[in-house]
Amino acid sequence: MKISLTIVFLFFVYYAGSAQDVQYTDAKALTLYGRSAVSGPHFHRVDTARYNDMPKHVKVLATYPAGLAIAFKTDSKEIYGRWRIKHGRSYKNMTMIASRGLDLYIKRDGQWVFAGAGVPGDTVTTHKIVGNMADGKKECLLFLPTYDELLELAVGVEKGSYVRPLTIEWKGKIVIYGSSITQGASASRPGMAYPAQLSRRLGYEIVNLGFSGSGKMEESVGRMVADAGADLFILDCAANPSPQEILDRTENFVKQIRVKHPGVPILMIESVVREGGNFDQKIQKRVWDQNNNFRRMHAKLVQEGMEKLYLINGDDLLGHDHEGTVDGTHPNDLGFDRMLQVIEPKVRAILTGNYPTE
Amino acid sequence: MKISLTIVFLFFVYYAGSAQDVQYTDAKALTLYGRSAVSGPHFHRVDTARYNDMPKHVKVLATYPAGLAIAFKTDSKEIYGRWRIKHGRSYKNMTMIASRGLDLYIKRDGQWVFAGAGVPGDTVTTHKIVGNMADGKKECLLFLPTYDELLELAVGVEKGSYVRPLTIEWKGKIVIYGSSITQGASASRPGMAYPAQLSRRLGYEIVNLGFSGSGKMEESVGRMVADAGADLFILDCAANPSPQEILDRTENFVKQIRVKHPGVPILMIESVVREGGNFDQKIQKRVWDQNNNFRRMHAKLVQEGMEKLYLINGDDLLGHDHEGTVDGTHPNDLGFDRMLQVIEPKVRAILTGNYPTE
Repeated sequence: MKISLTIVFLFFVYYAGSAQDVQYTDAKALTLYGRSAVSGPHFHRVDTARYNDMPKHVKVLATYPAGLAIAFKTDSKEIYGRWRIKHGRSYKNMTMIASRGLDLYIKRDGQWVFAGAGVPGDTVTTHKIVGNMADGKKECLLFLPTYDELLELAVGVEKGSYVRPLTIEWKGKIVIYGSSITQGASASRPGMAYPAQLSRRLGYEIVNLGFSGSGKMEESVGRMVADAGADLFILDCAANPSPQEILDRTENFVKQIRVKHPGVPILMIESVVREGGNFDQKIQKRVWDQNNNFRRMHAKLVQEGMEKLYLINGDDLLGHDHEGTVDGTHPNDLGFDRMLQVIEPKVRAILTGNYPTE
Repeated sequence: MKISLTIVFLFFVYYAGSAQDVQYTDAKALTLYGRSAVSGPHFHRVDTARYNDMPKHVKVLATYPAGLAIAFKTDSKEIYGRWRIKHGRSYKNMTMIASRGLDLYIKRDGQWVFAGAGVPGDTVTTHKIVGNMADGKKECLLFLPTYDELLELAVGVEKGSYVRPLTIEWKGKIVIYGSSITQGASASRPGMAYPAQLSRRLGYEIVNLGFSGSGKMEESVGRMVADAGADLFILDCAANPSPQEILDRTENFVKQIRVKHPGVPILMIESVVREGGNFDQKIQKRVWDQNNNFRRMHAKLVQEGMEKLYLINGDDLLGHDHEGTVDGTHPNDLGFDRMLQVIEPKVRAILTGNYPTE
């Protein structure tokens, strides 16, 4: 079954290419950023075979390439994507472009500028992402799907054009561990997930370890997170564990990272407000309890002498007009923009050693 | 077929109600806002039988309840929706909550505040939109799907609670004619479409006459638009007609409205920038040509003496970081928020007679 699908895929790649004078290059020959480690299947965020004791849901979600991006340069005036995803599921609260599409940025005047979306079909898609471009060399960053496993990907350019791996001179690396919100729900496209936006704004490679509904700080997951090297660890997971689990697990989880990375800053971010709790008192109370407990654990660790452990209060993360979510839980692009208005300056301050002491 | 589906629907209403101690009220017994006229099928924006000479696509899209909202009051602590839509199609560039879901706002301190989304199933859905609310009376505004025909809708409340029609004291009425962007693509939920947001912010009833890909200013459509009474007409259609069609049709379309409404302001809004044209020169040129021609027609009509005809330049509508769309064409919630930052103050100025003369 797997082999025959691969053959079908390759046939389509060949056919689409020859029919439209497009030549395809396997994305595995280009540069890939955003993985926690270099082992394991190419488009998986985490080598789950190395962390086989992690919860099943975490292992499944780790196969989705949220936050991963292909970097390449080309002189083509058109760029195509041809890709095959595994599940083809639809989510009620996000676009298919986000869950199983592609999102292309091209560098202009030193900035990554949106160039076009890869609009997905069912499981196999060929799509022209951008065309009619000016002559000249383009540096490209192609963000991969946030909520499906990517099995194959080829980048298409005009016949006679080149496409080559691009090395990006990142300033450093940030690991963000968290929930569905971290993973990208519900950005309108993969590049709008807040970790991807933060990466472009800061010039840091970001490893997105958001696991939808499953960012619960288990010890087995903490081992995996701590194994990733980084200049900053962000824990944006307070939305997933129960208030009691936050009390039970936060200290150990933070210490797992601290032990392996004694001098590296760790930033804890409280959960965004649940706009579903504007009137639902039960939802509202739960997120208050989660955030209170997360804050208590931060205070305890700081009091015990842990250095470079920071906290962002969740109250302002979505603004105050209650419009920043798609479903009362997951930020829309407005909500993500507001999160970044709070988070970006604090992350910059931490990275430059200018975080105000409280 | 239709009768049997209705029976299935009614059975589900009954079953869901009795099983969960929820009682349902047909939304037709509640207040409906946002229709262009009171005749025709209940949830249609336009009575297409009265305008049978309109293009076919316009007539189909007119059956989708974009911008329509049900107003009611209740003392229930839970609110459910039970609805049946016609097509159940999925769109790659929008969420299903937007295209075929519901979006509930409840009044708090004089403001409409998001309370919960009606997450859709396939064609028939029962969904608890909000629960665990405090005691007391709630004033509710339930926005209907933007991209599917709504065949039946019932609002569910706890047994023993009341649900009654709510009359909203609008300050006036605004008619917005336009494209897919006007219709609501790609807001994350129905209430995030910019006309719906503008309605809540201004306290004006808004009739959404956005027709996806079909806002092309045909004379037959102009007749329908002009028949709607309003305190302000907004023409946000420049994205759909070809540049030549804009030259050919704008004058007649504007005059159709002006003849029927001599003293009523008309606001022309240029198309948003096409972010798909950041690198695609062809896309970029087309929107420039559309906007240039729309602006020329505005200038010609003003020069000929037409009063109260205003224009908003499109350049700033999506901000300047190129992140305001889902697919290069349709604003995401960030893009809609930026549109409103430009449009809202100008509309307020027009409505209060304080628009600066240029």
